[in-house]
Amino acid sequence: MTFRLREFDGGITAAKGFLAAGVSAGLKKRGKDLALIVNSGGAVPAVGAFTSNLVKGAPIYVTMKRVERGKIAAIVANSGYSNVLTGERGIRDAERMAELAAEELGLNKDEVAVASTGVIGKFLPMDRIEQGIKAAAKTLSSSRQAARDAAEAIMTTDTFPKESAVKLVLSNGAECVVAGMAKGAGMIAPRLRVHHATMLSFIVTDASVEHSALLSLFKKAVERSFNCVVVDGDQSTSDMVLLLANGEAENPTISDPQHPDAESLYSALEAVMQDLAKMIAKDGEGATKFIEICVRGAETWEDARAVARAIACSPLVKTAIFGRDPNWGRIMAAAGNSGVNFDPNRVELYIGTPSELVPVLVGGVPLVQPKRGYGRLGQLLEGDHVKVVLDLGLGGSEAVVWTCDMSYDYVRINAEYTT
Amino acid sequence: MTFRLREFDGGITAAKGFLAAGVSAGLKKRGKDLALIVNSGGAVPAVGAFTSNLVKGAPIYVTMKRVERGKIAAIVANSGYSNVLTGERGIRDAERMAELAAEELGLNKDEVAVASTGVIGKFLPMDRIEQGIKAAAKTLSSSRQAARDAAEAIMTTDTFPKESAVKLVLSNGAECVVAGMAKGAGMIAPRLRVHHATMLSFIVTDASVEHSALLSLFKKAVERSFNCVVVDGDQSTSDMVLLLANGEAENPTISDPQHPDAESLYSALEAVMQDLAKMIAKDGEGATKFIEICVRGAETWEDARAVARAIACSPLVKTAIFGRDPNWGRIMAAAGNSGVNFDPNRVELYIGTPSELVPVLVGGVPLVQPKRGYGRLGQLLEGDHVKVVLDLGLGGSEAVVWTCDMSYDYVRINAEYTT
Repeated sequence: MTFRLREFDGGITAAKGFLAAGVSAGLKKRGKDLALIVNSGGAVPAVGAFTSNLVKGAPIYVTMKRVERGKIAAIVANSGYSNVLTGERGIRDAERMAELAAEELGLNKDEVAVASTGVIGKFLPMDRIEQGIKAAAKTLSSSRQAARDAAEAIMTTDTFPKESAVKLVLSNGAECVVAGMAKGAGMIAPRLRVHHATMLSFIVTDASVEHSALLSLFKKAVERSFNCVVVDGDQSTSDMVLLLANGEAENPTISDPQHPDAESLYSALEAVMQDLAKMIAKDGEGATKFIEICVRGAETWEDARAVARAIACSPLVKTAIFGRDPNWGRIMAAAGNSGVNFDPNRVELYIGTPSELVPVLVGGVPLVQPKRGYGRLGQLLEGDHVKVVLDLGLGGSEAVVWTCDMSYDYVRINAEYTT
Repeated sequence: MTFRLREFDGGITAAKGFLAAGVSAGLKKRGKDLALIVNSGGAVPAVGAFTSNLVKGAPIYVTMKRVERGKIAAIVANSGYSNVLTGERGIRDAERMAELAAEELGLNKDEVAVASTGVIGKFLPMDRIEQGIKAAAKTLSSSRQAARDAAEAIMTTDTFPKESAVKLVLSNGAECVVAGMAKGAGMIAPRLRVHHATMLSFIVTDASVEHSALLSLFKKAVERSFNCVVVDGDQSTSDMVLLLANGEAENPTISDPQHPDAESLYSALEAVMQDLAKMIAKDGEGATKFIEICVRGAETWEDARAVARAIACSPLVKTAIFGRDPNWGRIMAAAGNSGVNFDPNRVELYIGTPSELVPVLVGGVPLVQPKRGYGRLGQLLEGDHVKVVLDLGLGGSEAVVWTCDMSYDYVRINAEYTT
């Protein structure tokens, strides 16, 4: 196996053939707010994952329809307006947005995916959208800066743009790139359903992959990346992840998900998507700490993730960690509400940092006083990366969920969102 | 039907034969922290509802066992320590707490229920518990003040004691009282299972009711009261509601839940329990606004409550309302994650106050700009009582869930809980 992965500084344009642009169309009070991502060679195999919220934005419906056809050539995305709960007009606006981009790019409108993020319940200002699309089409480029501009244009409450890129070598020495960008800081608890999150993420690769193989790799990578992130437990109406593969790396086309090249590509996909997922947790609204919740000793991976997710969703756990309060009982209370069966007298709970964990509850016996500032654990909680390990003692499965603490700023940001 | 209900100022001692006391045993930094409630006539029919969290406190196990026997004579409850995740020693301590109270009161220890609320993972300081029980037993009284003392002794982050009392007239002109007390301000999202909720509530009545009829009335009243309150979406390990009926009103014993007297008693029970439940929401940690979420037009009451609960649990909805931000899209996003099926294009959403509602979304068409300070809705959100009405347009069922907003103080209280 010629497996080799290398992370490098790059954005969505790092994969051969992909162009990007990010412009300011006046949709937000400040900054770039309209992004274009274009494969210069036209429509290529594409797969997507979308929010499972019953209330879905117009762009979700419009893009799902295109992804079902299996091929996409371009993505047009905006921030500031989510185009959700905007009725028939919202659907027409999303369709028109795709059409405007298609006109500028010489594409068929069915080849253009659309995505929107921002306030729910407002109609898209189509005049500004149109001007933005025209301006973005004129500045399309494969440069590093163009990728960054696009990543910035989809930010809402995000404090930094999220980009990730990995290089890998496949059979015959073909060098491929998997690159992606994402946004998301609030309303984050995606439970994306593949092929059918306001986390947006666009991933591209220049590897040559058949649609069905791409879908199978993507499905697993979504479960192990974006579906393991929680900021506030509220799943958005607009979550969307798209992956395009244009084949410009000229590797022997990957058609069998069991082939070593598929495994290599999976590793690269997972690396990029997990990297972006962790950035979303680190940039959670008002976050002061990144929290890694690892549940092991579960009977299944799904059980492990369900318990980790329940802990990550608890406002009481998140406020305690913000307060550097080792009030670990809240972690157990959240786990006990997860719906997964375990014996509280048999679990082992550890809290600390990636390099040092303190046992707090072993075999039903509390080992650490849940008191702020208390002992070594009190010191460890001062850091900006907290790790929680809960061993259920039932089996061999393990899952990790990434989240963040809940601070005064979380309340401020969300109390003043539409001002 | 001689149905008549009258609310009056009273606590747990308002029902004939019930005595109470609340003392300071040094379990909290300040204030009363140990309560006794005693039926002067000994053990009487009692029913209970307990947390469905997999992680349950020692007092839950100990009291469930007693409630299964069907009769209770006294309740001993403390705040400051929850006696949860304290292993075998925790169980022994809870048993000993019952035994100490039984000794002071001349009862069998199996007739004494125990309840604890406070920090998880700390052993009960049994010496202080013992002193407290002795002191409380000495001050037992049927006075109004004694009831208030007991209600204060179970407070943790509560800002006011919660008491409610209702008088009703049954057949033969027998005058009965249903009276209750409760605590709860955080970790509130009870999903109590009857006979088998850190909301604590103790209800008493001097009506004469057979155990099975009492259970049937209680079960329904719990669903329509405490199981309709959400503060933060975190279900406690210690939630408990107990109801004792001592028969001292000498009404013709109620044995058939369909009898008009049973219906009258149910109305009184529901009135007292809903009153206490609403107080819990109003006193939610850091709350600045009481929020009533009414979901109607559902196919079943359970569906209506599930949607209302999903809205009440959303940190994004709660922070928006704190910020007086009519960002109603968040309400729909939360409803869409409830697991209940509906058509977003057919719903009607209204927001305002109990006396004035503003239509914001009707038939998929947004009618109000989700912008802070915008229009009449912006004015209405300045008040301290917000009402949300969501009509799913599917059927004739309706449910109401009571909750509160999420403020900076919610974060402060929970970040500093154990200091």
